[in-house]
Parts: sequence; C-alpha cells; structure tokens
Amino acid sequence: VSVRFSVDQLKRFAASVLARLGCPEEDAALAATILIAADMRGIESHGIVRLTNYVAMLRDGRANPRPKVRIVRESPSTTTLDGDGGLGLVVGPYAANLAFDKATTVGTGWTAVANSNHFGIAGYYALKAAERDLVGMAMTNATAVVAPLWGAERMLGPNPLAVAFPGLEEPPIVIDMAPTVSTMGAIVVAKREGRELREGWAVDRDGNPARHPDQMLDGGALLTLGGTRALGGHKGYCLAVMADIFSAVFSGANWGPFVPPFGTYAIGREPQVGKRLGHFFGAWRIDAFRDPTEFKQTIDLWIRTFRATKPARGTSGPLIPGDPEREAEAIAVRDGIALGDKVVEQLRAIAADCNVEL
Amino acid sequence: VSVRFSVDQLKRFAASVLARLGCPEEDAALAATILIAADMRGIESHGIVRLTNYVAMLRDGRANPRPKVRIVRESPSTTTLDGDGGLGLVVGPYAANLAFDKATTVGTGWTAVANSNHFGIAGYYALKAAERDLVGMAMTNATAVVAPLWGAERMLGPNPLAVAFPGLEEPPIVIDMAPTVSTMGAIVVAKREGRELREGWAVDRDGNPARHPDQMLDGGALLTLGGTRALGGHKGYCLAVMADIFSAVFSGANWGPFVPPFGTYAIGREPQVGKRLGHFFGAWRIDAFRDPTEFKQTIDLWIRTFRATKPARGTSGPLIPGDPEREAEAIAVRDGIALGDKVVEQLRAIAADCNVEL
Repeated sequence: VSVRFSVDQLKRFAASVLARLGCPEEDAALAATILIAADMRGIESHGIVRLTNYVAMLRDGRANPRPKVRIVRESPSTTTLDGDGGLGLVVGPYAANLAFDKATTVGTGWTAVANSNHFGIAGYYALKAAERDLVGMAMTNATAVVAPLWGAERMLGPNPLAVAFPGLEEPPIVIDMAPTVSTMGAIVVAKREGRELREGWAVDRDGNPARHPDQMLDGGALLTLGGTRALGGHKGYCLAVMADIFSAVFSGANWGPFVPPFGTYAIGREPQVGKRLGHFFGAWRIDAFRDPTEFKQTIDLWIRTFRATKPARGTSGPLIPGDPEREAEAIAVRDGIALGDKVVEQLRAIAADCNVEL
Repeated sequence: VSVRFSVDQLKRFAASVLARLGCPEEDAALAATILIAADMRGIESHGIVRLTNYVAMLRDGRANPRPKVRIVRESPSTTTLDGDGGLGLVVGPYAANLAFDKATTVGTGWTAVANSNHFGIAGYYALKAAERDLVGMAMTNATAVVAPLWGAERMLGPNPLAVAFPGLEEPPIVIDMAPTVSTMGAIVVAKREGRELREGWAVDRDGNPARHPDQMLDGGALLTLGGTRALGGHKGYCLAVMADIFSAVFSGANWGPFVPPFGTYAIGREPQVGKRLGHFFGAWRIDAFRDPTEFKQTIDLWIRTFRATKPARGTSGPLIPGDPEREAEAIAVRDGIALGDKVVEQLRAIAADCNVEL
C-alpha cells in the first residue's frame, strides 16, 4: 500500500520540519529541494525516507542548523571549505556554487569540503552546473559499508561520482553512480521480502560470498563494481578510493572506515582522523574549451548516435545516462510521489513530533 | 619461449626506430620512454608490442612525425589543443605539461586535446603530475571495441581513466583502469590458447553472451565493467561515456564509434565527426587545497590503514591501487623485460626494415 503526495507537498513538509529544527528558512527550502529531487529522480534511498536521520542529527546536536561555513584555503580556481557541521544539503550547494563561480572566472573551479554531512544525490550538483553552461562534477564519501577487493571488512562508503554534460535540444547526459554492484537498500529489501542475494552483490564477515541478506547485514559488506577479481572488482574498488580521497584527503575530512555513520553517529567517537565527512565539487566552463553551441550540438549528435545503436537481442537498446531518472522525474511531476506505508508512518511521527502538518 | 631485454635496450631501440621515421630525437626518446613504461608496469598490451602500429602509422603518413601542436582556445586554467596528427606519445606529454603548468599557476589546470593518436598508458601522465606535487588525471578515448549496455555494436573504446595521489613515505596510490570487464588482449589470448571466454566478458554480434573468442572477434564487443544490468553494467558504460566526452567533445576529436582504428586507419575515412582521437588531462595543485606534507602524511596513513584490512578468507588481503604495477616495475628494472618470440620477431622485422640494431 502506498500514499501519493505531490512534489510540492513533500518539499513544503521537509522544509517546515527543518525550519522547525532551527535551519534558516532559505536553507530549509534548499535542503528540502535536494532531498525531494532524489524521490523525483527515482533514487528513493536518498530522499524523504532519510528525513528521520536528518531530524535525529539536528535534534541531537550532531548536525549544526546554522553553520558558519569557513574558507580554509583558496587559489584562483580552488577552495577548501570547512562546513562547520552543517547539513550536507546546505553546505553542499554552497560549496558547489563556489566551484561554479571560479569556473566562470578562470575556466575551472574546484571545492573540497570537510566537516559536512550527507549531501543527498550527487547528480543534483552536476545538473546545477549544467544550468550555468558548465560541466559539473560531484563526489562525496559516505559511511563505510563496502569491502575493498579481497577484504572482509567495511572500509569504504558507496562513494558516488556524478557528472552532467548539457545538450542543446537533447536533455543532458547525467552520470550519477556509486562504485558498488548493489546497495544497502537492495539488501534490506531482499531481507524484508525473504529473498536471497544475487551472486556478486555482497560478502559476509569473512569475505565469503553472502547469499542471505543477514550474512551481509551482520558485519558483512557490499562488493565493489565488478565484484570478483576476474570480473574487475579491483576497478570498482579504485573508483570508491578515488572519491574517498578527493572528498576527504583534499579537505581534511574523515576518510574510509572513519566516516561517521549517518544518523546514529555520536560526535567525538574515536578514532577520528578528520572532520565529519567530505565532498568534492568541480566545474569546467564549456566556452573555456570550445564554442558552447558547437559543444552542445555535438552532445546532441552523440546522444542520437547512441540511441541508434543496434539493440542486443531481447532489449530495446542502450539508454543514455540519465534517461531512467528523467523519466521518473516526469512521472513524479505529473502523478506525484508514491510513498510506502512505513515511510508515511515515519513522516507522520516527525509531523507530530515537530508540530508540522503533513 | 621468451627473450629478455633490459629496459634501456628497449627504450633505445624504440627511440632509434621513431627517429629513423622522422621524429625529432627528443620526441622519439620521450615516446620510447612512455611506450616502455607500459612494459615495465606489466601493461604489455600498450608497450613495445605496439611499435609495429606506430611504425605503420608514421610510414603511411597517418601520424605526423613533426607535429606543430597548436593552442586553439585557452583560459587561465584550461587549454584546448590541436595535436596536428602527432603521436599521442608526443602530443600527450606536451598537453599534460600545459595542464600541470596552469595548475601550478592558478590551482588547477586542464587540457583537452583533439587530432592526436594513442598516448600509451594513462597512468604515466598521472604519475608525472605526482612528481610536481600535483594530483594528476588523464583520460583518452580509443577505437570502439565496447558495447554500451543492451547494445550489440562496438560504440565505445576501452577509454581509460587514471589518477595518482602521492604519499610522503609510501609510494603513490595509482589508479589506471579501463571501464571494461576484460580486454581485447585477453580475448586474443583465449583464442590462441583455445579457451572459452569467462561469462560476462563479451557479447557476440547480436548482443548475446559470447563464449567462444571468435564470437566476440567476429563483430561482437567487450562488455562494460559490471557486465549485465543486475551487476551494474550500466555503471561501466557511464565510465566509458565520461572519458569519451571529456576526451573528444571538449576538444573536437572523433568520439564513440568514429574514433579511427589504431594502425589500420586510412585518413579521410568517412564519416568523421572530429579530428582523430582525443585526450583530457587535469591536475590539482596539492597546496591549493591543503598543506602538502599533511596531505601526503594522510595518504600514508590511508595506505597503511587499508593494508591492515582484515583479509577475505583465502586471500592475503586488499592491495593498494598501483601495487601490481609497481611490483612489475621493480622486477623489470632488476631482471629486464621478457618478450615472447612473436614480439621479438616483429621487432627484428622493424629493425631490418628501419636499419636499426635491436
């Protein structure tokens, strides 16, 4: 059973809750927009379902509702930022905008951020850049749930990488991917539905293939994209490493296994090797490289060429990166967003708790 | 049977051959260094075995031994370069250095290159940046041998992405990866040895799983990292797309299926959508973000932490990206480089043809 809400309903609700917990109205609205963007784009795991976590973090003083974001170091094309423990949904857009501004000025711009929290979907930031005739990139690190190839321990987050390339008549190519085969969400769903895990998704606490969800959940880990060595698991591991180092070692945030858990983290837990978690944003100004119209026309032609690829038997042919999310978004705008009973129940609890109407 | 050569022997040989074919001595030496770096790092597919292709390209006038590399557009942090049809092994280092210089000046630097040819191993360029207290990134596109997920056609190259993070006492973390499950080299070896392909490596000309090497070689294609949809094949596809667009759409090179074949390409083949193939180089100056010693100490700690990961049963635990290549390099320096009979035969033919001593 599910209940349908309009995009605006959910945005207003999330914004009211965050404002009630001390966030300035403007920040609350921005954070709500990014949160609901995940639901709209079919990435429910990063959407309103996480409001509970954000609320808990603000309530417990683990996230700062009124961060004084501080520039720690900068150069003409770079900034290192201390997010002062703010919500990633607020610190993230600020940091990304700094990168976009520097790209506008000197061709490219980059921001490394420490002392932040989960920033929502990485694709949001890449898409914001596209609106400004920039090609944007976003990475973040996250709580460790992933084993490096040949490891039997959670050492890395499902650290995403996103980039968007704008077309002229065609919608942008949007890449937004975690370096894992599967997701925590999929493991939890398999458990709820009493299903076995697919081979290659996860390992148990000894690094053996996990078939039952509990084997993963009880101290096991997700596998990196590729899974085994023979199928390229070392490459997915490399991608997770890349986002971890750009996000945290450039900025001075916690990296690898030290990234605080989302929602259940107590400040001051030892060991800490940095400040909360980190992000990395970049942007390239298109006309620093090529005439923007020419660039976008080429993207259009690229998209049309790839849409015309001979389909593999039994399929309707390749998608363009970003297609599924854009389709989901169109449906969300038209029909609203369907939330499961359990999520609605959580939201009602938050509504009662914060004295905000759902 | 194999013959062993010292690193210097092979470098001198390759340099002499390229010089004989019209490359300035300095360019020939540089190209030879990059070529042999592949053999040293255990990536033989990109090493001296390809000298035959480079020779053919220079002989047939398909590569320009004396390119007049031209800046097409620039900003304080970016350059777009026309490689004038030169060897990628010569145009690549020039372009990478431009990116490094701009990073030194304004914090980050980026070069998009069109009208170039295959540039060797991407990791070489990332490692050069590390020597200058920069974090370097390199991408290139390449001849299409890869199918997009759900495609039954060769639409993308095995376009690599490389990045290197320098440590203080520890050697750098070096990521250098193609976005595919397997490689053309591995398919060819399987054919030679009469073995079946592993499941998930490749498809035949209809997009069905290829078990026999000939099914792939005869109009089939390599699969992207992840392989099937359930195991994340769309993510490997995204990585191949990313490198293709950065390398070619930013610079005006051929992209996707239009990238000319290596070694057998005739100039002027239609359709062309750009100039030869493209690369993309970037660099971040470490001290634009953080004190370099602090950064490198953190990399050291990162490496030591990950080396101490609990090993999966039956393994000796995770490697650090770059470990296998560095080990191969140490062996190559000590014992030389072993080349198979067939490769030696090819080199002897080149030696005779160019009147150069092997």
